[in-house]
Amino acid sequence: MDHSLFGNNFRIMTWGESHGAGVGVTIDGVPAGLSLCEEDIQSMLDRRRPGQSDMTTARSEADRVEIMSGVFEGVTLGTPIALMVRNQDQHSGDYDALKDVYRPGHADFCFDQKYGFRDHRGGGRSSGRETIGRVAAGAVAARLLSELGIRVLSYTRSIGDIEISSFDKDVIASNPLYMPDEEASKKAVELVRSCRDDQDSVGGVIETVVSGMMPGIGDPVFGKLDAALAGAMFSIGAVKGFEIGEGFGAAKLRGSENNDPFMSENGLIKKRSNHSGGILGGISDGDEIVFRVAVKPTPSISREQDTVDRDGNETKIIIHGRHDPVIVPRAVVVVEAMTELVLADAILSGMPDRLSSIKEVYKR
Amino acid sequence: MDHSLFGNNFRIMTWGESHGAGVGVTIDGVPAGLSLCEEDIQSMLDRRRPGQSDMTTARSEADRVEIMSGVFEGVTLGTPIALMVRNQDQHSGDYDALKDVYRPGHADFCFDQKYGFRDHRGGGRSSGRETIGRVAAGAVAARLLSELGIRVLSYTRSIGDIEISSFDKDVIASNPLYMPDEEASKKAVELVRSCRDDQDSVGGVIETVVSGMMPGIGDPVFGKLDAALAGAMFSIGAVKGFEIGEGFGAAKLRGSENNDPFMSENGLIKKRSNHSGGILGGISDGDEIVFRVAVKPTPSISREQDTVDRDGNETKIIIHGRHDPVIVPRAVVVVEAMTELVLADAILSGMPDRLSSIKEVYKR
Amino acid sequence: MDHSLFGNNFRIMTWGESHGAGVGVTIDGVPAGLSLCEEDIQSMLDRRRPGQSDMTTARSEADRVEIMSGVFEGVTLGTPIALMVRNQDQHSGDYDALKDVYRPGHADFCFDQKYGFRDHRGGGRSSGRETIGRVAAGAVAARLLSELGIRVLSYTRSIGDIEISSFDKDVIASNPLYMPDEEASKKAVELVRSCRDDQDSVGGVIETVVSGMMPGIGDPVFGKLDAALAGAMFSIGAVKGFEIGEGFGAAKLRGSENNDPFMSENGLIKKRSNHSGGILGGISDGDEIVFRVAVKPTPSISREQDTVDRDGNETKIIIHGRHDPVIVPRAVVVVEAMTELVLADAILSGMPDRLSSIKEVYKR
Amino acid sequence: MDHSLFGNNFRIMTWGESHGAGVGVTIDGVPAGLSLCEEDIQSMLDRRRPGQSDMTTARSEADRVEIMSGVFEGVTLGTPIALMVRNQDQHSGDYDALKDVYRPGHADFCFDQKYGFRDHRGGGRSSGRETIGRVAAGAVAARLLSELGIRVLSYTRSIGDIEISSFDKDVIASNPLYMPDEEASKKAVELVRSCRDDQDSVGGVIETVVSGMMPGIGDPVFGKLDAALAGAMFSIGAVKGFEIGEGFGAAKLRGSENNDPFMSENGLIKKRSNHSGGILGGISDGDEIVFRVAVKPTPSISREQDTVDRDGNETKIIIHGRHDPVIVPRAVVVVEAMTELVLADAILSGMPDRLSSIKEVYKR
Repeated sequence: MDHSLFGNNFRIMTWGESHGAGVGVTIDGVPAGLSLCEEDIQSMLDRRRPGQSDMTTARSEADRVEIMSGVFEGVTLGTPIALMVRNQDQHSGDYDALKDVYRPGHADFCFDQKYGFRDHRGGGRSSGRETIGRVAAGAVAARLLSELGIRVLSYTRSIGDIEISSFDKDVIASNPLYMPDEEASKKAVELVRSCRDDQDSVGGVIETVVSGMMPGIGDPVFGKLDAALAGAMFSIGAVKGFEIGEGFGAAKLRGSENNDPFMSENGLIKKRSNHSGGILGGISDGDEIVFRVAVKPTPSISREQDTVDRDGNETKIIIHGRHDPVIVPRAVVVVEAMTELVLADAILSGMPDRLSSIKEVYKR
Repeated sequence: MDHSLFGNNFRIMTWGESHGAGVGVTIDGVPAGLSLCEEDIQSMLDRRRPGQSDMTTARSEADRVEIMSGVFEGVTLGTPIALMVRNQDQHSGDYDALKDVYRPGHADFCFDQKYGFRDHRGGGRSSGRETIGRVAAGAVAARLLSELGIRVLSYTRSIGDIEISSFDKDVIASNPLYMPDEEASKKAVELVRSCRDDQDSVGGVIETVVSGMMPGIGDPVFGKLDAALAGAMFSIGAVKGFEIGEGFGAAKLRGSENNDPFMSENGLIKKRSNHSGGILGGISDGDEIVFRVAVKPTPSISREQDTVDRDGNETKIIIHGRHDPVIVPRAVVVVEAMTELVLADAILSGMPDRLSSIKEVYKR
Repeated sequence: MDHSLFGNNFRIMTWGESHGAGVGVTIDGVPAGLSLCEEDIQSMLDRRRPGQSDMTTARSEADRVEIMSGVFEGVTLGTPIALMVRNQDQHSGDYDALKDVYRPGHADFCFDQKYGFRDHRGGGRSSGRETIGRVAAGAVAARLLSELGIRVLSYTRSIGDIEISSFDKDVIASNPLYMPDEEASKKAVELVRSCRDDQDSVGGVIETVVSGMMPGIGDPVFGKLDAALAGAMFSIGAVKGFEIGEGFGAAKLRGSENNDPFMSENGLIKKRSNHSGGILGGISDGDEIVFRVAVKPTPSISREQDTVDRDGNETKIIIHGRHDPVIVPRAVVVVEAMTELVLADAILSGMPDRLSSIKEVYKR
Repeated sequence: MDHSLFGNNFRIMTWGESHGAGVGVTIDGVPAGLSLCEEDIQSMLDRRRPGQSDMTTARSEADRVEIMSGVFEGVTLGTPIALMVRNQDQHSGDYDALKDVYRPGHADFCFDQKYGFRDHRGGGRSSGRETIGRVAAGAVAARLLSELGIRVLSYTRSIGDIEISSFDKDVIASNPLYMPDEEASKKAVELVRSCRDDQDSVGGVIETVVSGMMPGIGDPVFGKLDAALAGAMFSIGAVKGFEIGEGFGAAKLRGSENNDPFMSENGLIKKRSNHSGGILGGISDGDEIVFRVAVKPTPSISREQDTVDRDGNETKIIIHGRHDPVIVPRAVVVVEAMTELVLADAILSGMPDRLSSIKEVYKR
């Protein structure tokens, strides 16, 4: 059972319901000697904050993170780092009507089946607010990765059927949907607005590129690096698909098309192409890691829907309150954070791979 | 680090290289009182055996499983069940030429980067033979699931661009590609033969349907049932994509299209549709669980390919020996086994979800 | 590694340095449906609070616990329960002199060897304040145990060479050393005072009795119930010995003396004696669980001691500040809490032991 | 739940009943590049073999270990190492009389309470034969430790009330009780014989000394090195007590007596004494690690004992078959093996403690 624990060596435990006292995370396994301040974390958290455009809910929260432990004089101690954000601006009353009625596309019914009981206010543990802990922890992982020259970049590849056709890294942060193609972004914004006006919602695809990754990270069997990424991505609510490199497209290719020939470049072994997406046999091959995640349309839509109540009586539901017509842009930073957590964990886990490394570390 | 350990409560550890003394698995966490015999396991293992048609390699192995522990008088003891298959018919010599040359699309280079060293014979731990342990363990998990009325069925949905257009369960076992559509199967067999004649290979998609699943299984956050399935599927070599329910298609849908309205049927709460694929918020919703896995074309192809040797010198490689022109049919039973392992584990993990269940178990 | 994680099913992660922002714990795996309020936790925390007599340090802290998540309308949700206590009344300045000097009997030197760095204020993570998280979590475990009729009682068995010679449960809470023998307690108080006046400290032994324990809990091999208890007790700072039942005395007994004959009593199978201490082969035998823990004398003594600084220069150290002349009484509640955590975890872990139990839980 | 899994990074899973097909272990997490052959393991296994003197049971087994995986051309691959010993010479018939009767001091009753069922032949999983897997794995851990200059030595400190009064390392292997004091050994042999003639058994104490240990190994909270050792020792059947350094004696000392002053010796920081037993605050302090384990007298004695059958009827039991009048000498190598496993695991787990170590390993 791993209710709320993630990772093996760089390990996090998140906590918090949407409408409880707060949300947070404890990170266990951060090495000593890493410089870290609240601003490192806050700047990443701010990227998932709602209320930044009409693409997202109007719930405005300061979401100020507090480092409770594990850092002393701006440097990590090697001990658990507890991070906390207090909940504010909660319109719990908005949810009273949902107490005994199951929202389609949500886990309300499943929670009742599992626990016999749930906190009906805002999805409880299934709320997007649970991801605050992940993003905060991801920021710490990102600090570690940056010391090793690794950079994770996630962005929106498509919204509905509008897909990017060019890539400009600098555009990503400047449009509300985090797309690297300004033109596509404008069309997508129109699409989202029309869905919202239609009391409806839409999905999309998030792509992630990891640069600077060293080869040799990941395990050959169950601890495959892509298996860890797949599991991490599917731990994000609303994710319905994951693919790496050629992904589902590889199922239609020939071996001669999909294989990446090795070559030599300036004394380094490289691949001529990257159909693999940077991982072979579960182990990083030194190339860019490239994967995509499919995000479903927000299940909370304001039009009337058919459903049942706890007793099984058929009824209608209209979901009031503030809801994003598209989850994708807010999920981008969560995808990035989960990627960072997976990589940090895999890198620490791989340290004892060779006897020579063990001797090197302990010659101190 | 979880090199070769899988699961939390129904937990397995596999071992064995392709060309070592044997391969096997130890299963820890099988409840006491389950009837189990070698035939239960052997019949599932036989489904992954090579040499059954010209669709798969000619390596013919008996692969007789031996139950070494954990079963007494045909019933599980609650103690670890060790299962072993000795390796036979190994043409290690076939691999001598590969000792210092990296096969494109394989993990050879990555192994050397990780461990500084590898068993070059037949892929070592990355060999398909490693999956024998998983399939054997899956057969034990299947016995447990069947006691609870749960049935897992995997089959080939497409080979290359040939996809099934009808579904007849009874046809699956009678064609070499395990497709539930006889006509599609015939076309696909032709395709595979043409790839093989072309010294090439092809990929495909495997679909899985779980019936009889109770609602309420899976955890809301990192232990989501679909996250566990995604991670399990990506632990299978050659898997490049995973999607559940509408999957990547959901990214193009509206919320009103993708949501499944609840309804009442004979006093039970059901969904009108199954876009979710049987899991909502990471927890089973009582419907059929339906997911798909993309399998890449076999990287071992017999035509000449560009590559480098260990020292980085560019060279050509021609892979001799016996290789499947398509991995998909042999992966079907592995997908089924991993699904069974995930479900058994999630079901055991969920037992303490409610105080009332704990009291019930211990009133004994 | 499990830096700060404890347990498998009823699992806790503690965080916090002595002089950081606070200390706390997240509990993952508490079943849904358990009634729980802050007072349940506070009353147990109050028992470890310093400043209650001249037996303990004068540092007076309110140590008010706050439930941050996992409880809704007074009942547990099945989701992680985060508990937090803010630090107050910190005399960090007291520790400035210790920045570069290693205190004998403390982990200062070891921390520097491990991390190359430490928070020198009050022992950081090795501080007794870390146990606040454990005690708070133990209170939640105790709530679960009480639903099953299990009661854990810890008390001081000896201080220095003064041992109890009678047992009166009602006396335990009414003397500052938590001894169940009023006369011994008075002598022990005298002894502690004389140690303190002597600028010295003294150790002791804590005994624990678990009543109402069902048989069949614990695993036969590495998850032995006594192994879990031993590990848990040694995770408490200052513990130097652990023994169960006859303990070290058993090494001097004959088999005929140490074996407990079984008998029948009112249709129940019982043991005639309890040399085993309630656990046989790692599994509870239904009798009272009885074990003892040896606690070393407080290493912080105010008399001058020989030591070295970080650079290896020999020097003298005088430890100022507030320190207990005996740790034993404050450790009593920590021993009790760790016992409760071990038992709750083992009880949840044992739920899937039998196929029949699994069927029973899921017939719902 | 960790039925049969031990360790976090250097991790083992054992399997096998006393009278099943065999016993074995899989070791996951052995670094690549360690030279290893069957003789390394066999020589350690031979030390626990029965039938070597009249101090132990006459069951004579070859117990030949077979390396099934993970080693290629005499060097570890970094992949799981499976080790197996087939069972032989099983007098299962000896146990027929015990099928429905509970042996005092054994786990028979507890197994039935836990699983509702057991393999009554020879204790099943509680048999001493289960330790074969541990000792085999310990031999692999010992190979790793020896590369780092660490040496574990276990020996018998006392049998009944006969304790060693001198220490000669060279004598240990040459007497059947593994005592480092020849004179004490002779008296102890007499004692054991008299117990056996008396149809009785006797216990003893095993001491372990670890030399060459680097400081800084172990975690400050739940992963304390002494907590791991305590848990490991109590996972050995028949162990009833564990103490480190001054152990229970520390409870009677003053702080000024128990503290070890630091000093400088040839530029290295050392302790003037070793009351701590080589671990402070859960972390190795660079001194010898010294601990003791109390072993109870063999519960299998041939004189008549009172007991009950499965239905609770009171009856008498006489245990026939081959049983050691003292377990201590055969447990010595198990204690040594478990110590080696704990140390190897802790050393691997500690590798990512510092950012500088991570950078060093990955600069490759």
